[in-house]
Amino acid sequence: MEVKIVLIAALGGSVVALLYALSRAKWIFKQKVENEQLKRIGGFVSEGAMAFLSREYKVLIPFVILVAAFLAIGNKGPIKLQAAAFVLGAVCSGLSGYIGMKVATAANSRTTQAASDRGLNAALKVAFSGGSVMGMSVVGLALLGLFIVLATTTRLFGEDVVALADVILPILTGFSLGASLIALFSRVGGGIFTKAADVGADLVGKVEAGIPEDDPRNPATIADNVGDNVGDVAGMGADLFESFVGSIAGAMILGLTVQADDELKVKMMLLPLILVTVGVVASLIGTFFVRTKPGSDPQKALNAGTFGAAGIAAVFVFIVLKFFIGEQVFNGGSGMYHIFGACIIGLVSGVVIGMITEFFTGTGTRPVTSIMKSCETGAATTLITGLGVGMMSAFPVIVIIGAAIWSSFALAGLYGIGIAAVGMLITLGIQLAVDAYGPIADNAGGLAEMSEFPPEVRDITDSLDAVGNTTAAIGKGFAIGSAALTAIILFTSFKEQSGVGIVDLMSIPVLVGILLGAVIPYLFSSMAMSAVGRAAYKMIEEVRRQFREHPGILTDDETPDYKRCVDISTQAALKEMLLPGIISVVTPVIVGFAGGPEMLIGLLTGVTASGVVLAIFMSNAGGAWDNAKKMIEAGGSGGKGSDAHKAAVVGDTVGDPFKDTAGPSINILIKLMSMVSLVIAPMLKSFWG
Amino acid sequence: MEVKIVLIAALGGSVVALLYALSRAKWIFKQKVENEQLKRIGGFVSEGAMAFLSREYKVLIPFVILVAAFLAIGNKGPIKLQAAAFVLGAVCSGLSGYIGMKVATAANSRTTQAASDRGLNAALKVAFSGGSVMGMSVVGLALLGLFIVLATTTRLFGEDVVALADVILPILTGFSLGASLIALFSRVGGGIFTKAADVGADLVGKVEAGIPEDDPRNPATIADNVGDNVGDVAGMGADLFESFVGSIAGAMILGLTVQADDELKVKMMLLPLILVTVGVVASLIGTFFVRTKPGSDPQKALNAGTFGAAGIAAVFVFIVLKFFIGEQVFNGGSGMYHIFGACIIGLVSGVVIGMITEFFTGTGTRPVTSIMKSCETGAATTLITGLGVGMMSAFPVIVIIGAAIWSSFALAGLYGIGIAAVGMLITLGIQLAVDAYGPIADNAGGLAEMSEFPPEVRDITDSLDAVGNTTAAIGKGFAIGSAALTAIILFTSFKEQSGVGIVDLMSIPVLVGILLGAVIPYLFSSMAMSAVGRAAYKMIEEVRRQFREHPGILTDDETPDYKRCVDISTQAALKEMLLPGIISVVTPVIVGFAGGPEMLIGLLTGVTASGVVLAIFMSNAGGAWDNAKKMIEAGGSGGKGSDAHKAAVVGDTVGDPFKDTAGPSINILIKLMSMVSLVIAPMLKSFWG
Repeated sequence: MEVKIVLIAALGGSVVALLYALSRAKWIFKQKVENEQLKRIGGFVSEGAMAFLSREYKVLIPFVILVAAFLAIGNKGPIKLQAAAFVLGAVCSGLSGYIGMKVATAANSRTTQAASDRGLNAALKVAFSGGSVMGMSVVGLALLGLFIVLATTTRLFGEDVVALADVILPILTGFSLGASLIALFSRVGGGIFTKAADVGADLVGKVEAGIPEDDPRNPATIADNVGDNVGDVAGMGADLFESFVGSIAGAMILGLTVQADDELKVKMMLLPLILVTVGVVASLIGTFFVRTKPGSDPQKALNAGTFGAAGIAAVFVFIVLKFFIGEQVFNGGSGMYHIFGACIIGLVSGVVIGMITEFFTGTGTRPVTSIMKSCETGAATTLITGLGVGMMSAFPVIVIIGAAIWSSFALAGLYGIGIAAVGMLITLGIQLAVDAYGPIADNAGGLAEMSEFPPEVRDITDSLDAVGNTTAAIGKGFAIGSAALTAIILFTSFKEQSGVGIVDLMSIPVLVGILLGAVIPYLFSSMAMSAVGRAAYKMIEEVRRQFREHPGILTDDETPDYKRCVDISTQAALKEMLLPGIISVVTPVIVGFAGGPEMLIGLLTGVTASGVVLAIFMSNAGGAWDNAKKMIEAGGSGGKGSDAHKAAVVGDTVGDPFKDTAGPSINILIKLMSMVSLVIAPMLKSFWG
Repeated sequence: MEVKIVLIAALGGSVVALLYALSRAKWIFKQKVENEQLKRIGGFVSEGAMAFLSREYKVLIPFVILVAAFLAIGNKGPIKLQAAAFVLGAVCSGLSGYIGMKVATAANSRTTQAASDRGLNAALKVAFSGGSVMGMSVVGLALLGLFIVLATTTRLFGEDVVALADVILPILTGFSLGASLIALFSRVGGGIFTKAADVGADLVGKVEAGIPEDDPRNPATIADNVGDNVGDVAGMGADLFESFVGSIAGAMILGLTVQADDELKVKMMLLPLILVTVGVVASLIGTFFVRTKPGSDPQKALNAGTFGAAGIAAVFVFIVLKFFIGEQVFNGGSGMYHIFGACIIGLVSGVVIGMITEFFTGTGTRPVTSIMKSCETGAATTLITGLGVGMMSAFPVIVIIGAAIWSSFALAGLYGIGIAAVGMLITLGIQLAVDAYGPIADNAGGLAEMSEFPPEVRDITDSLDAVGNTTAAIGKGFAIGSAALTAIILFTSFKEQSGVGIVDLMSIPVLVGILLGAVIPYLFSSMAMSAVGRAAYKMIEEVRRQFREHPGILTDDETPDYKRCVDISTQAALKEMLLPGIISVVTPVIVGFAGGPEMLIGLLTGVTASGVVLAIFMSNAGGAWDNAKKMIEAGGSGGKGSDAHKAAVVGDTVGDPFKDTAGPSINILIKLMSMVSLVIAPMLKSFWG
């Protein structure tokens, strides 16, 4: 009975979110783009992005079929349905990326037009609407997918604890795996695309030819803008869809393992779903707070939305717990206040990680200023200082993550960690709206430049972009923190599902597993970095070739061949994303079957511990270099064109694949490997007896 | 009885090694330095190096006293003697560094003189003699120290299993801790000194003023050469002293834990000591193979020494096992062949890791060539490719380490891993001789340049230096592999000593410990890198100042103020080495007492897994950049002075603190933290009941 009510609520939340997204999307498409060149260039970007996405999905279809076949054949009895859930997860994830990008590429040029015709506030409204379509689609589709899987399976197999634990939740992990798989490929593929184009465009355009960023004479400039959409929008959408679904599924599994009677166990399992449903509603309400009057500060508008939604969500959560749990206790003493505490720990530690991130990467902070100063003595010291800053930043973040794990565990056991993970992402709808708003504003600026709008338009989009940065840093904090927490709940869930007893840390297979796990994120990053290096090399050669063979390009007498650059990025991304993706999927399977579940748990521990730290290091080093460069461009240490600036560009270019390809991909990698393990847990259980 | 014989043998081995070192040292000092400028400049370098070392030791004395007091007060009963053993370990480690450097700085200028007067072979003889003094002093002092500790304690407390396990071996860990502590400070301090000077000298001298390396007009050039001795000779000597003692102590502890009767347990405990004693003799014999006739290849001479010693050691080990173990079995079936197998696994995997290292970092290999090619498109792509190569290289190395752990464990349990660790370092005497030979030859080249010898002399020393590189890569492989294995045997020993039962990997304190552990090497590296960055910045400012205020320096009319540059490096090194060192010592103490021994084991696991991978990545990325630059200087990709060369210099400069400061320090860090834990294990046991 309760199960039905919760599922209907989830469906309701999903429908509301999707309807809201639809209405915002319609509104955006109704806005007109009047400038002809903007229409044309915006069309190039949109076309290139959609073409890449559909080619990417085509490449992935056989891969999805293969994994689905493995799940259908490898599993026994009803768990074979994992295969169907997997395909659904993959489709929903792909769809979130598709919708997000379709709308973002439309919102880009309309933001430029609005900035030109009607100024800052109108532009903010368009850009934020674009972001909110993305945010609401992601959470709406996630709830919809979860509803479909759970409604179907409970109808088929019943709602009792045994059916839930042995059949329904294992099938649900298939859904989550589908989401993770597509997310990894999108992040890696998108990351390679965007950084190859970016590095290529910057190094030849800015450094060699001396033309500004986003100059239409640069043949790689369209590819660069396509890349921003492919990487920052579609990649991020799939990424956060995955995080959201993964943390919910993990927490649901842990819900069934609390010590309580069967009825309460089922409630605990359902709770994460209810929490995110009220979170979706809170996010939706939050979007209405993002209003600006002429002259008011857009940063305040975004903050009002984000923090308003978080506050409302907290109130909702408390009310839900009051009615749904009330006085009931589990684990011999934990009750609604403990759960509420764990949820708040998740929310707060996400914000704190975001603040730490901001401290180590934001313009004008002490660490970033130290990088700027080191630019004065050349590229080498810029690199050394930036690497040092990135490494340092990992320490406080890990301390916060450790504290969050420890304290939420103290409140409500493993389930508490699950709730903290869900709590971090509870207002994902609006967080993602703000996150996606950034690249839209950024792209709008690029389009303004390429379409030769007057500089005031660029100034407006720049200020929009700058506003998004702080909020985006906080969003990044949530992504990092939730990846660590989710990975931990997933591999503890794996332990439950695979039927192993205590895992002895000092046993040699476990230790070897940990060592091997620790090196996987490096292997993975190396592949991603080298792929960017190789693709950028090709891009550089191509841009140099065009400048050399068509000198008319630089004098504005010839149009560069944009398409060829887009093709180079597309092909490189599609080719190079496969191997790292396959390694992530295949490694846990091999280790699980050849080395046993204990060694696999070791592997997952190693991947998580080493991966989380490496990801923080890479993301923050990249972010810090980026802003050190921006500080110099704003006049610090000699300003634009100085030797310090050249050194800063080198730092930023190295940071690009760090922060936009390898770093965020590792966040997915660690969850994907745990998810693969979780999915094959029933097979491993019967294989190892 | 057996204990006495083994101890006497160890003493004998020690005396032979030290006498050999003494005779070689005398021979070196008997060689004359006739060139006046060589004498003067060599004097500067030697003076600067010895001055630094004595100031460094002075800074460390209070620290050593503090730790000794903690050990004397914190321990109960006879274990208080740990404090004395600790001081002895610190003194022996300091002494190895001192002797090594005293002789190396004498051998430098004599190698130059020999190269000038009598050519390649004479120069090889001097340089290798210098290295062998270092190698033999290190192993001789290690055996002597072990003898003193064990002879005293067995006389005081007896030779039975209980006394050994509860009193004598815990006291022995104090000796090992003393060695580790000094090693860490020497590596970090030496690493900061040498890289600050190197980066400063290169960036202003080579890049800005356009004068060649080691030009006497460069004020930082003496500091640079002092740094090579301080970092590569004294630092490495203390480092390998630590590795050697640590692996022996760890294996001895594990020897007592095998399943066997008491008599055999004691034999197993003694075995590592016997193995290294015969290894010392084998190394000594090996040094006599390093002979060249005029016209023969010096590489062959060094190979003959290294591989000859390894072969002889293998034969000796077999004979020892035959007589000492014979048909006896332990752990329910392992016998002498299993032990022999584990020992060979150690030796072979060290060589394989060395070959992998050579593949990823050697001149002309595919990965290094790819870095060279990426130099053509600028510093950014150089950095991206190099980081990718370094990350990639960690994967095969970890696979080999994992395989070595697994297979030696399969042969003889945990004890097998201990034997493999000892096996890796069994011929340390000659490995270290070859390792130390490299910097001596390198420095001889620097002195030739600074003393304005004709270019033929430099050619000879360069070819000597090049010869050492491959062998040095193999030495690095041994250092990395043995660090990983030793860390693992140390923290398994800690588990035995601290009295905890099974450590549940899935318990939250353990997982949080692992996460926290994983970030420590990053924190540590960050500090080391930033220290180099800061010190290099000061050095750059100073060199620029001297060139600016004394234009006569560049026209050879004024002598630069070398001393001031040496002072900058000295002060920076002494100031900046303290904090990372203190963190390494204090962290396990805090986690052990506040979080408990299980969490501490988690911490050590995290530090080891993350640290080993990070160290390999950093060392190999640095090595690869270095050789990519050398390939360009030898005429590749445009050659010296081209834009590609400039990019390569940036890569090399970033790689310097990677490979010579942070990377090797992490190898010590992971062992030091395990060693601290092992030493406080009795205290933790009584604290936690």
